[in-house]
Amino acid sequence: MKADRGTKPTAAPASRRLRRPLALPRQAPGGKRPQKIPVNPYEVGLDRNPANYQPLTPLTYLARAAQVHPEVVAIVHGRQRISYAEFYLRSRRLASSLHQRGLGKGDTVSVLLPNVPAMLEVHHSVPMTGAVLNAINTRLDPVAIAFILDHSESKLFIVDTEFAALAAEALKLAKVKPLLVQHDDVEFPQPGRLDGAIDYDAFLADGDPDYSWEMPDDEWDAISLNYTSGTTGNPKGVVCHHRGAALMGYANILACSMAARPVYLWTLPMFHCNGWCFPWTLALNAGTHVCLRWVRAKEMYELIEAEKVTHLCGAPVVMSTLLNAKAEEKRDFSHVVNFVHAAAPPPEAVLMAMLKAGFQLTHVYGLTETYGPATVNDWKPEWDELSDDAIGAKRVRQGVAYAALEYLTVLDPKTLEQVPADGATLGEVMFRGNIVMKGYLKNPKATDDAFAGGWFHSGDLGILHRDGYIQLKDRSKDIIISGGENISSIEVEEILYKHPSVLFAAVVARPDEKWGETPCAFVEKRAGFEALSESELIAYCREKLAHFKCPKTIVFCDIPKTPTGKIQKFKLRELAKKLP
Amino acid sequence: MKADRGTKPTAAPASRRLRRPLALPRQAPGGKRPQKIPVNPYEVGLDRNPANYQPLTPLTYLARAAQVHPEVVAIVHGRQRISYAEFYLRSRRLASSLHQRGLGKGDTVSVLLPNVPAMLEVHHSVPMTGAVLNAINTRLDPVAIAFILDHSESKLFIVDTEFAALAAEALKLAKVKPLLVQHDDVEFPQPGRLDGAIDYDAFLADGDPDYSWEMPDDEWDAISLNYTSGTTGNPKGVVCHHRGAALMGYANILACSMAARPVYLWTLPMFHCNGWCFPWTLALNAGTHVCLRWVRAKEMYELIEAEKVTHLCGAPVVMSTLLNAKAEEKRDFSHVVNFVHAAAPPPEAVLMAMLKAGFQLTHVYGLTETYGPATVNDWKPEWDELSDDAIGAKRVRQGVAYAALEYLTVLDPKTLEQVPADGATLGEVMFRGNIVMKGYLKNPKATDDAFAGGWFHSGDLGILHRDGYIQLKDRSKDIIISGGENISSIEVEEILYKHPSVLFAAVVARPDEKWGETPCAFVEKRAGFEALSESELIAYCREKLAHFKCPKTIVFCDIPKTPTGKIQKFKLRELAKKLP
Repeated sequence: MKADRGTKPTAAPASRRLRRPLALPRQAPGGKRPQKIPVNPYEVGLDRNPANYQPLTPLTYLARAAQVHPEVVAIVHGRQRISYAEFYLRSRRLASSLHQRGLGKGDTVSVLLPNVPAMLEVHHSVPMTGAVLNAINTRLDPVAIAFILDHSESKLFIVDTEFAALAAEALKLAKVKPLLVQHDDVEFPQPGRLDGAIDYDAFLADGDPDYSWEMPDDEWDAISLNYTSGTTGNPKGVVCHHRGAALMGYANILACSMAARPVYLWTLPMFHCNGWCFPWTLALNAGTHVCLRWVRAKEMYELIEAEKVTHLCGAPVVMSTLLNAKAEEKRDFSHVVNFVHAAAPPPEAVLMAMLKAGFQLTHVYGLTETYGPATVNDWKPEWDELSDDAIGAKRVRQGVAYAALEYLTVLDPKTLEQVPADGATLGEVMFRGNIVMKGYLKNPKATDDAFAGGWFHSGDLGILHRDGYIQLKDRSKDIIISGGENISSIEVEEILYKHPSVLFAAVVARPDEKWGETPCAFVEKRAGFEALSESELIAYCREKLAHFKCPKTIVFCDIPKTPTGKIQKFKLRELAKKLP
Repeated sequence: MKADRGTKPTAAPASRRLRRPLALPRQAPGGKRPQKIPVNPYEVGLDRNPANYQPLTPLTYLARAAQVHPEVVAIVHGRQRISYAEFYLRSRRLASSLHQRGLGKGDTVSVLLPNVPAMLEVHHSVPMTGAVLNAINTRLDPVAIAFILDHSESKLFIVDTEFAALAAEALKLAKVKPLLVQHDDVEFPQPGRLDGAIDYDAFLADGDPDYSWEMPDDEWDAISLNYTSGTTGNPKGVVCHHRGAALMGYANILACSMAARPVYLWTLPMFHCNGWCFPWTLALNAGTHVCLRWVRAKEMYELIEAEKVTHLCGAPVVMSTLLNAKAEEKRDFSHVVNFVHAAAPPPEAVLMAMLKAGFQLTHVYGLTETYGPATVNDWKPEWDELSDDAIGAKRVRQGVAYAALEYLTVLDPKTLEQVPADGATLGEVMFRGNIVMKGYLKNPKATDDAFAGGWFHSGDLGILHRDGYIQLKDRSKDIIISGGENISSIEVEEILYKHPSVLFAAVVARPDEKWGETPCAFVEKRAGFEALSESELIAYCREKLAHFKCPKTIVFCDIPKTPTGKIQKFKLRELAKKLP
């Protein structure tokens, strides 16, 4: 009764097979269905026009907030309190200045900024001009930053003073010569100077506060570019569009149970997937951004108490920082604070300690390619009645699709058939929907691979529980997540292999109470080079790699291999877990 | 610095002038902007594909709710409690049956149903097949229903037994011969039988519970058709699309401050703008629909208490019903109940009484053309501290744009210039955005008029306060709203004018504690026909018109007119207000 509606596109067979277990709908066929009546009256004279169709974009959210809630505090930073009226005005000023300098559609504006008001301003100003925001990870090394500046063809580069020296190093290596703007934080002054840079405030002051920014031509237009560390070779530039960023606003609010006027503490770096889109989201419900230049326990507790913070997001390392704070740094708070944590959950003991400390927990998961979180462990009130063990087992699951993600599932990566929902069979977590990236910038091969068969392949391995909740089990690409940062084991191994004393090297994650995971290297020395020490090899790595990527532990041993000589990483992972 | 970007489309001059006062962005030009670089890298190899683009539709919300919350009670009706798993299963069964009977894209399914589970099921099932749902106002007369069945080319007609006689009358007059399905409410059995109709449950049982429905081909496809009573001539068919219905889900939740798992009491008829899209909205946050066949005080109080209702929507008449209930019908409830009321607010005394009775109030406004509410009187916590008078003045305002509505304003209807935000200058309320209809079915003239200049013209007159909140002042087309129903004064006048004794007739709204407004007719008798009595003329109207449209008051007098003979309705409105 339904097979007569034409053939399916390439992606359909998997989708079709998927249908039964989770009752997903089948995809609409690529072509139009045969019409049974000569004219479909619903398709005559009912076209899009400016009155009934506007591009979806989060830029309208700030405009609306500034109109409806001009007096509400949009941003807290040190002693600064910036209202929505002022936030919008400053954002338009900056957009105007960018526009005056010729920035517009197709141009990239790169920034190297901590979580300060300017970082929020660029999230709105840059897309207001039609240009694309590229927020660079401030922990990267100059080589990686130079690559990113060149690959993104950056026209303008805004750098916080704290990172002036880093930026200068990167600019020496880069081919592009972007216009330079230096941001000085008046609340937290930093030493340093970037040669040839215009002052941020002077640059902003050049702009027209009434600048009449334009809606994007199309909601599919790029809004941001975020480089993700690949497992091999150079980082890939994830391109996000206005449509997805707009929908993330609604979906974040639902997933994080946000009432009107939330107070959001910026423990998550905004250079991570645009801070999971919260720089845009909060304008939807007149939320207050509480900036945090450095993630430190004392400041976090002070702000939670003083500003009545309702939400914060971050990696498990932020939890450890809060829990391991000195007694005199901690503050009591009686209101509800929702901690939204991502990806691999911390040990159960940490979760339980957070609950005891008065935090609510929301567990989400996603990738840069999905605008940040795209799944949520939708917590059922009745689960609170379970035993501690059962609660722990539920807490570690990554959960179900975000409201704005049309499909989430676990597929056999070869056949694209859904794995049984048995809580055991391993497959690859795959996404399909409106909060999946446009693709990788200037990287058609990687884009095609990522979207093979009409699904976005996460590269993460997981299982499907009987109730449809997913749980991550392993990373197919051996990514190590340390303090919320992705570290490619292969990148570290490549450096190790360049050392003359190293014969074999393999890097895996070692569980860490504070950082979640740290890189742990297993090394076989070459004959005649037995003198190599752990500290010597770590020092060598720190010369070549960003410090957070360097192994924290090095084990010299015979590395277990398959008969064909392939290193058995799963055995090393077990070993790393058991290290004293 | 920005005028060099090409010319504007027709709509732009107004939009451009709008910019300054409310800081609206200017519209993107119709054509592409001149590109400053030969290739925009963000537009190469980054196209839509099934993994990153899916049509927006509320149908995915029910599928998700059934997967994530299969055990949550989706619908309460009498003793029935239907889970989300069952709701989705029944909806797919019904969709399958519709599909088997050949229903699909471009087809209209009309229904004449009260607020029962079947009404919720058709909201999901009909669009699952690609067909369009036409929920008919059960208070209309057979002539209007026959017109609607014919104009919509209805292929199938689902009728509740309560309305079997009404449907039979209409079918006698209609040219179309739809397949008939009769819905018997097992919880509230009704007498009656519609000849030739299939039983609803048998029809549904024919379907496949695993029916794999299709996503719409395009999010612009029609999802529903709602006839609105025009001021002249026949009703107009408002066509809504999947995109708007999906966005309304998010926007309703924000406007009505809904947390997860709301409990929603169905006092608003679902045949009104698809119940403001709440049949779809609630699937987003696993809400419970509490059905209500008849709006009666006792049942409302019982359900509010027993089901812990968190939200209900409706016209001011529902407030009066609640407030004027007998003491023994009322129930105490300690939880927060949010009453969302629309359009013209009731008298201040009623609002204050509602607040005292423990209800929270949310004031919204919109039209069938805007999917129901498109503005919300976004209430600021600090306003609670104002004097009663000042609170009253704030309470009567219709407010600001829904989050999913891109622009709301008050324009001079001739020049399309924004009126000053002075709280005094009258203009026409206009909308622009993604929750505005596709247009009127088979009525290009009305569609063009409604969208003239790139704005949807509401036909309602209002003012713009200094803070950007709008307030309705009058209806340019003299619509009377009685018990939530629109009554065209012109339609009633036309009937009056057909009576041999009537020389002049003018109908205006008379404020009414219970109904909000009732039609009040001013009549000048012809010479020699002085014997005509009020009761005789009302009886005459009741033969020709739906009863709710008939004048409740008739005043025989000389009707005030301008020197050119135009009736001065504003004077009559003042008179009607002062009637004893």
